Amino acid sequence: AVRQFLEEFQAVDLAELLQTVPVDAARELLMYLPVVQRASVFGHLPVDWQSQLTTAMTDKEVSQLLRHLDADEGADLLHVLPENRHDRVLRKIAHAEREALRRLASYEEGTAGAIMTSDYMTVPAEITVGEALDVIRKSAPSAELIYQIYTVDAQYRLIGTLSLRELIMNKPEARIKDVMTTDMVKTKLSAKQEDAAKLISRYDLLSLPVVDDDERLVGIITYDDAMDVAEAEATEDMHKGATIGPLAGNFRDARLFTLYRKRIVWLLLLVFGNLVSGAGIAYYEDTIAAYVVLVFFLPLLIDSGGNAGSQAATLVVRSMATGDIAISDWGKLLLKEVAVASGLGLTMAAAVSLIGAYRGGFDIAWVVALSMICIVMTGSLVGLCLPFILNRLGWDPATASAPLVTTIADASGVLIYFWIANWILHLPAP
Amino acid sequence: AVRQFLEEFQAVDLAELLQTVPVDAARELLMYLPVVQRASVFGHLPVDWQSQLTTAMTDKEVSQLLRHLDADEGADLLHVLPENRHDRVLRKIAHAEREALRRLASYEEGTAGAIMTSDYMTVPAEITVGEALDVIRKSAPSAELIYQIYTVDAQYRLIGTLSLRELIMNKPEARIKDVMTTDMVKTKLSAKQEDAAKLISRYDLLSLPVVDDDERLVGIITYDDAMDVAEAEATEDMHKGATIGPLAGNFRDARLFTLYRKRIVWLLLLVFGNLVSGAGIAYYEDTIAAYVVLVFFLPLLIDSGGNAGSQAATLVVRSMATGDIAISDWGKLLLKEVAVASGLGLTMAAAVSLIGAYRGGFDIAWVVALSMICIVMTGSLVGLCLPFILNRLGWDPATASAPLVTTIADASGVLIYFWIANWILHLPAP
Ligand SMILES: [Mg+2]
Ligand SMILES: [Mg+2]
Ligand SMILES: [Mg+2]
Ligand SMILES: [Mg+2]
Ligand SMILES: [Mg+2]
Ligand SMILES: [Mg+2]
Ligand SMILES: [Mg+2]
Ligand SMILES: [Mg+2]
Ligand SMILES: [Mg+2]
Ligand SMILES: [Mg+2]
Ligand SMILES: [Mg+2]
Ligand SMILES: [Mg+2]
Ligand SMILES: [Mg+2]
Repeated sequence: AVRQFLEEFQAVDLAELLQTVPVDAARELLMYLPVVQRASVFGHLPVDWQSQLTTAMTDKEVSQLLRHLDADEGADLLHVLPENRHDRVLRKIAHAEREALRRLASYEEGTAGAIMTSDYMTVPAEITVGEALDVIRKSAPSAELIYQIYTVDAQYRLIGTLSLRELIMNKPEARIKDVMTTDMVKTKLSAKQEDAAKLISRYDLLSLPVVDDDERLVGIITYDDAMDVAEAEATEDMHKGATIGPLAGNFRDARLFTLYRKRIVWLLLLVFGNLVSGAGIAYYEDTIAAYVVLVFFLPLLIDSGGNAGSQAATLVVRSMATGDIAISDWGKLLLKEVAVASGLGLTMAAAVSLIGAYRGGFDIAWVVALSMICIVMTGSLVGLCLPFILNRLGWDPATASAPLVTTIADASGVLIYFWIANWILHLPAP
Repeated sequence: AVRQFLEEFQAVDLAELLQTVPVDAARELLMYLPVVQRASVFGHLPVDWQSQLTTAMTDKEVSQLLRHLDADEGADLLHVLPENRHDRVLRKIAHAEREALRRLASYEEGTAGAIMTSDYMTVPAEITVGEALDVIRKSAPSAELIYQIYTVDAQYRLIGTLSLRELIMNKPEARIKDVMTTDMVKTKLSAKQEDAAKLISRYDLLSLPVVDDDERLVGIITYDDAMDVAEAEATEDMHKGATIGPLAGNFRDARLFTLYRKRIVWLLLLVFGNLVSGAGIAYYEDTIAAYVVLVFFLPLLIDSGGNAGSQAATLVVRSMATGDIAISDWGKLLLKEVAVASGLGLTMAAAVSLIGAYRGGFDIAWVVALSMICIVMTGSLVGLCLPFILNRLGWDPATASAPLVTTIADASGVLIYFWIANWILHLPAP
């Protein structure tokens, strides 16, 4: 009855449900399931659950799981298991599969190799469409994705591809080599996972073939995993944009100390950036003493620069991530940003000059308006250029976070504001 | 020769290439292509290019395009065309297709209906697997996706689904109704497009059936369009997180005035938020005059609150978007945030108290440290709660942008800081 109840769930829903009960109960429920469904549910569990569950399982049970998991998920499970269990759990697995798992597990995280699977379909180029369909029918239960088929030469170099749709639309007598496409999208083992995912999305692929340096087919990346990668990379970029370090799991389940660690680093770094603003204010102490009303406009002016800068940085970082802009576009974008920022600065200046005139008279209005234009312009250009500069330095452009841009804009804003005030109000240099 | 050269490109690459030449030349190049490829390239062009190109085309040419576009893209093209051309370009199209296009074009943008296609495959539940394969073989050239097949009853209500993989793995004599799954993931016409895309990603679907209020099958959403939606929604959220209004096209091609318009609204709104900070500083004028050194720590303290708050808001907004947290999690998350923020506040307080002691002695160090704890705590809690509050008010939680959180944290930070300073330094209330 329990089994029947559990079988009605989709694997991903069941995996979520299991995470709401204690590990022991989860393990028992998992063991109730037929092995195919068990593997499917297990593949959807987060790494820490996989780790706890396998600790409580015998080698035989883990081995059985490994045999039924998709190869890419099996390779991930090897990462979760302690090294000393690898040989024991792999012993019962057929040689070819075992080697495929070891190989898949050996690629560096974040690369195409680390998210590909070895359960793909190949057919010889010389056989007919009818024969190929028979091959596919036989492999259908074990291959992860049978809708895109590949052909390789004797050296296992990728030479062509065709979809199951093309297969069933062609005459059974036609030769594969005459109906396949030879000009296909592919990626290297060492490509970044986010670039591989972008290819899948751009070309609407079901699977992307991965080749080694000798053009040999070594695996495929499936569309569903590309979706997960795209989501994870977008999350990473959003987190970076708010100075949060990359989280391995999800926010809800993250441990307190992990969250602390991922957040404290940049918060402390930015304190030092803000010391510059503080020093700037201290430097202009006499100016402030002479016109205390200037302090009233300080947050408003420096924040506006930071806000405009965050906008520009976010536009650039996201467009770089989606591939909408290239590094070479920076000159054109700079010109556009100068134009847009002028418009923004002028509008903001008009708004604050009214408040300035009301609070401090004509001179103050003039100081505030002029400062606003210069500060918004500076902030915007910092925001626009920073991602390009970071990229040039070999860093992730997503590091150009709103808080970083804001801190730089604050420091320069303080200096610009009081310099202009001193000049227009004819104060002595400090 | 030109045609041969052009035919070697993938449609999406060719679409990108066309956008680098003048519209007239693009139109000519497009017309060189065989009509199937032409439609495929055209479907990848952005709306403003489609609009310009169709303006230069005859009704007959547009009609031909419409016939060869996927139904979802055809419906989008209807949106691009002026109303008065609709009848003329639809006249030559077969009745059923014409009505399907009109219907697809009638759903509100942003809903499941607006991104679905009517080119899906249905088979009767009573036929055999072998007969179904024949049906599929015949429909393969025209249906957009033949790998997931649906069955409907006499009222066209969705009753089951099965994949082409399951079809070819079963015996040709088996009845569809015995091998299909009746318990399937589906969505409503009016569902949000981002929720539909999330279902596709969560359940690794190739297509998601869309039903109307009477459970009748009205279309499917394909995995490739779900990827595009997920990307666009992540971009929208990142932009909102930096107070940029939703951009229809991409950043590189956006017009100056569009960019200005999408950015100025929040910049101006935030100016008013910052007036509160300014007023707070002005209110504590005498405190500042008595201890000018306090100003040195002002940017550092208030920004730290804003930075910690932006982190919290970003974690919550993104987790809500990916479905990792639910609204009901807010209590648990609040407790966690109190713990994490305490840790952050204490660490930051330790760091700044040293600087405080160096610059202003023991009392100032004490003021600065205590303020840092309270400000980081306040900022973090504002950041954590704001997305939940916005959601409660029926707004998009992504509106809890870093600049908005920063501005709120700034205003409360000024008040907290000077209140603590007055208290510890035994100054008279202003
Ligand atoms: Mg992996
Ligand atoms: Mg695509
Ligand atoms: Mg996979
Ligand atoms: Mg998966
Ligand atoms: Mg990454
Ligand atoms: Mg990245
Ligand atoms: Mg549409
Ligand atoms: Mg998935
Ligand atoms: Mg489509
Ligand atoms: Mg598409
Ligand atoms: Mg939206
Ligand atoms: Mg949204
Ligand atoms: Mg600030």
